[in-house]
Amino acid sequence: MKLPDSTAVPLDNATLDRLIAFAGELADVAGSVILPHFRSQVTVDHKPGRGGFDPVTVADRAAETAMRELITMRFPDHGILGEEHGARDSASGLTWVLDPVDGTRAFIAGIPVWGTLIALHNGERSVIGVADQPYLRERYIGVPQQTILQTPAGTHVLHTRPCVRLSDATLMTTSPDIFRTVEEKDAFDAVSDATRMTRYGADCYAYCMLASGFVDVVVESGLQPYDIQALVPIVEGAGGCVTNWRGGNSLHHGQVIALGDSTLLEQVVACLSGASRS
Amino acid sequence: MKLPDSTAVPLDNATLDRLIAFAGELADVAGSVILPHFRSQVTVDHKPGRGGFDPVTVADRAAETAMRELITMRFPDHGILGEEHGARDSASGLTWVLDPVDGTRAFIAGIPVWGTLIALHNGERSVIGVADQPYLRERYIGVPQQTILQTPAGTHVLHTRPCVRLSDATLMTTSPDIFRTVEEKDAFDAVSDATRMTRYGADCYAYCMLASGFVDVVVESGLQPYDIQALVPIVEGAGGCVTNWRGGNSLHHGQVIALGDSTLLEQVVACLSGASRS
Repeated sequence: MKLPDSTAVPLDNATLDRLIAFAGELADVAGSVILPHFRSQVTVDHKPGRGGFDPVTVADRAAETAMRELITMRFPDHGILGEEHGARDSASGLTWVLDPVDGTRAFIAGIPVWGTLIALHNGERSVIGVADQPYLRERYIGVPQQTILQTPAGTHVLHTRPCVRLSDATLMTTSPDIFRTVEEKDAFDAVSDATRMTRYGADCYAYCMLASGFVDVVVESGLQPYDIQALVPIVEGAGGCVTNWRGGNSLHHGQVIALGDSTLLEQVVACLSGASRS
Repeated sequence: MKLPDSTAVPLDNATLDRLIAFAGELADVAGSVILPHFRSQVTVDHKPGRGGFDPVTVADRAAETAMRELITMRFPDHGILGEEHGARDSASGLTWVLDPVDGTRAFIAGIPVWGTLIALHNGERSVIGVADQPYLRERYIGVPQQTILQTPAGTHVLHTRPCVRLSDATLMTTSPDIFRTVEEKDAFDAVSDATRMTRYGADCYAYCMLASGFVDVVVESGLQPYDIQALVPIVEGAGGCVTNWRGGNSLHHGQVIALGDSTLLEQVVACLSGASRS
């Protein structure tokens, strides 16, 4: 599944505000569908045709259906790219990118670090990103120039923290098993060896903690557009950056670096490219 | 640090109830000390004399101090074995085993799967175990024959789930890095290869999810008494079992298996012993 690669649809501030509010509505409807299934003995199906165990539940499917219905009703000319139910072309150049439950493995193990990911892509890049964790009642919203965290206690503006030496950095990734080749594993291990601490198991929540200033580096592979598009504005709006493993902007190959402090980019790219091992 | 290995101090039901309530008071005081430091830019120190980066914060130290003061005031004849401030002998045969923040790495990364662990050891075994997660407002309490989860929404009795085939099991462990030798890594990988899904990164919370029926197997190594003593009553009270890697009761060597369904014990021990690889 790929996003269209075209020119950016211009959006004035009033339209952007309206679409940010609508993204919140999408998160509300997804949370209301998903939460009753969290920590229930939900039936877990295995998606055929992919490597390894790839779980999906009724929560994933029903939440995406609910979001798609809401988009179709309110913005019939917007496109949709969803993890569970595929792509619908956009007549407007705007596309909603949806992952109803990012971190289905965490979800079925009862660990509340999964999230609902919602991005609005303007043909060139994501201009709105939402990561919603309804069990924790935390909603991370990234827009150009700002990322906020909404909780029942209030709204906070988020900032990544400075970190200029990789040896001081906290690194996160979802699992060592996401690196599928020996080269990828070696590349990740080189970054891990250079950092102070490596922590596994947080899916989208790792990027939210990076935007919040508690994690410095996330390195992942095998990501699909719906896994990362919502997280780019969240990281960038808080002051960080998201690149591919060569430090470039194209995220089409699923290899992602997220940094709270872009000063680290050269060091991380050097580790991943093998320059630190030669 | 080792626990005394002696005969069990008898405890009548009224005394046990009073001590369970006191364990809750200890969790309350620890949570009130720790929570203001969670997701603050708390100073992280490195404990000297151990392999790798071993973080500790003021939250760990101050919470253990607060719990020790409360124990000393109310039960001066009880012993204490704490992660941060060491051992105090018991005049009564009863010892409180304390880990103020199990999962300090998760704590400093902002991920709410750390917990305060409190056990009461009767000279032979832990008869009370508490795992408290104050950010999530979840308190898991294990006593002989029962495990409960207390939340603001109410109290629930927990049960592990049946799982008789390792190929259907969800496995958790804190990190691949806790296995320090090639033999240990190979042993863990053999279990991982035999299960349906492996998930990393939950510290004590993995055992809580096992007691809740969402995880089937936890395999860890390098555990100290304060890392595991509170979790044994929580797992056993919900219907599961905790053994060493040979299937025996002695947990003195830090290698632990926790199972929701003890039917799996033979299969897991076979994987760990290399029987499945020969």
